[in-house]
Amino acid sequence: MSQNSSKLSSDIQWKGYAIENTDDWSNFKVIDFKPKPAGDYDIDIKIAYCGVCGSDVHTITGGWGAPHLPLIPGHEITGVAARVGPKVTSIKVGDRVGVGAQICSCLKCDLCKGYNEQYCPDAVDTYNGVYPDSGTVSQGGYSTAIRAHEHFVFRIPDNIKFEEASPLFCAGTTVYSPLVRHGAGPGKRVGVVGVGGLGHLALQFAKALGCADVIAFSHSPSKNEDALKMGATRVINTGEQGFESSVKGKLDLIISTVDDFGALPLQEILSTLKIGGRYIMVGLPDDNLPKMKAMDLVAKGVLLGGSKIGSRKEIVEMLKLASEKNVRPWIQVLPMKDAGKAVKALNENKVKYREVLRQDIDGKQIN
Amino acid sequence: MSQNSSKLSSDIQWKGYAIENTDDWSNFKVIDFKPKPAGDYDIDIKIAYCGVCGSDVHTITGGWGAPHLPLIPGHEITGVAARVGPKVTSIKVGDRVGVGAQICSCLKCDLCKGYNEQYCPDAVDTYNGVYPDSGTVSQGGYSTAIRAHEHFVFRIPDNIKFEEASPLFCAGTTVYSPLVRHGAGPGKRVGVVGVGGLGHLALQFAKALGCADVIAFSHSPSKNEDALKMGATRVINTGEQGFESSVKGKLDLIISTVDDFGALPLQEILSTLKIGGRYIMVGLPDDNLPKMKAMDLVAKGVLLGGSKIGSRKEIVEMLKLASEKNVRPWIQVLPMKDAGKAVKALNENKVKYREVLRQDIDGKQIN
Repeated sequence: MSQNSSKLSSDIQWKGYAIENTDDWSNFKVIDFKPKPAGDYDIDIKIAYCGVCGSDVHTITGGWGAPHLPLIPGHEITGVAARVGPKVTSIKVGDRVGVGAQICSCLKCDLCKGYNEQYCPDAVDTYNGVYPDSGTVSQGGYSTAIRAHEHFVFRIPDNIKFEEASPLFCAGTTVYSPLVRHGAGPGKRVGVVGVGGLGHLALQFAKALGCADVIAFSHSPSKNEDALKMGATRVINTGEQGFESSVKGKLDLIISTVDDFGALPLQEILSTLKIGGRYIMVGLPDDNLPKMKAMDLVAKGVLLGGSKIGSRKEIVEMLKLASEKNVRPWIQVLPMKDAGKAVKALNENKVKYREVLRQDIDGKQIN
Repeated sequence: MSQNSSKLSSDIQWKGYAIENTDDWSNFKVIDFKPKPAGDYDIDIKIAYCGVCGSDVHTITGGWGAPHLPLIPGHEITGVAARVGPKVTSIKVGDRVGVGAQICSCLKCDLCKGYNEQYCPDAVDTYNGVYPDSGTVSQGGYSTAIRAHEHFVFRIPDNIKFEEASPLFCAGTTVYSPLVRHGAGPGKRVGVVGVGGLGHLALQFAKALGCADVIAFSHSPSKNEDALKMGATRVINTGEQGFESSVKGKLDLIISTVDDFGALPLQEILSTLKIGGRYIMVGLPDDNLPKMKAMDLVAKGVLLGGSKIGSRKEIVEMLKLASEKNVRPWIQVLPMKDAGKAVKALNENKVKYREVLRQDIDGKQIN
């Protein structure tokens, strides 16, 4: 297998659409890059598609801090395994595979062994990450290829297309993990704040998990019909005075996908939780949480938490559920050369509901 | 019984130590007051002792907002049942009883039926509360007597003295409820932030519940020895640089009793939680929570929550556990006329660990 794989490996170009300056964050230029040295457990993937995630915008604009430059973003990656290291057992060359927001961790610590590898101190993000051993900075999926440890590479179910699978690897994982960790399922009432890239998948997964009630909280009434099609049993428009009254104290769990705390009526939304209910943030605004007193949580007896992507175990389950229950992102496909347009549209909140870039550098489209 | 009780009732004086002005919040004057009209389920208690709670200071200083004046604080009340309404079944005249921070709720709503009566919208606080029907403002336990619905009146176990029972009714309940609701018990590692009125009972209850590890986080090294005697397995001084390193990612639950966010290294303390771990606030500072980004909770995968006193069911359990496992507050007893000194000492953080006032208005000491 290693002989075979090294032959295919020579076929790989390492090129990607990069930004060189956070002040000029939508101006992508094709650059060559060098991946980390190939390890025994690494898989090289020829990229077919890459989804455009809110994280990409936060990173290229410098909203989360100064990134390593030049930077190739993208962590919703699908394609074909082109080379597998000699110790890889889970994937073979030619498999349809995907990679999300993480490509490495130590796999030895208690977190890694306890299905929490996404929180490993040695975790390497798919892009703008730094390998602790070689110091290589990782480059993402707006590119021709990626190298990742097999633990973070997943077979795509046969009935899911590459371009539809892409958003599952970050957006899908990011909402699935807190749903299952915090008990979403039959008999439970779950809210989803924000009907966007993450939210539209959260609604679908909450439905697929059999929740009794799935409430979409949105400030865009134009998305109401879509939200119902995605699995919401009700849509509540947070722009309306007293919007919370019909569900006060009713929800077990809320997944918050909002990307900006500016217009979020957090206290009113928290009041829709039951005692002991949880508001779990997966969106990561640049700005601070709204000002809050301990009393705001004490008087309601609720919890505010966060959740980071998902573990391998959860990604495997998530893909199976998506395959069986027809959970699919609602996507707009663009050629990768339009990455600049894509990130601008996302930044302006104009996407319904996920953009996916089709790789166009090496000219051989993968389907 | 009702004939009997009405005879004893005539014996009750309704007098208490009140403050009349939040700017002069340690200047108590004895006033007469009128309790709410007696209901069929109400119990009148001749007060023996009342604990001095942080809430009393927040309320009389106006830190939580303008109170109803004149105000008699106090909600850690013990004494003897002097009159019981005709429909009371759980208590008889002469019983040794206690009352905490709540004296009424609707007892009909889903919250009340679901062991969450402390969150009932019609809940009436023991003092500075307003009865929804009569509009009467409740007056607290720095006084000769209190009237409360039997649901909120509890028999004191025979082996607990009045003055030692008093702090259990608010401080004890307030820490016991989140401990059990959030899973404290064998095998669990629990932290307690702040070794004061609430914290010193949280340490004892965490130990009594059989937790594997009980970590006291304190910024007062002078309390270290005491904390170990109270049940802490370790004391960590939060004033030391890198204090969190030895317990990073280890704790299942933290009960935060701090009364002031000024000096609280919240992010470092949160880093001691496991993934999915919970930081539950029961202290209620006047000031806002420290500034925080969603990323602070997401990157750690933890939850921040609040908890309000406890339900009747929990108070009954808490008293039983205290009785069996010798959980007792460490108290300083003062005559009630020293209420001003007592609240000043608490405000200056000079109390080790709970002050209890002995009723001295009607001159007949109850023991």
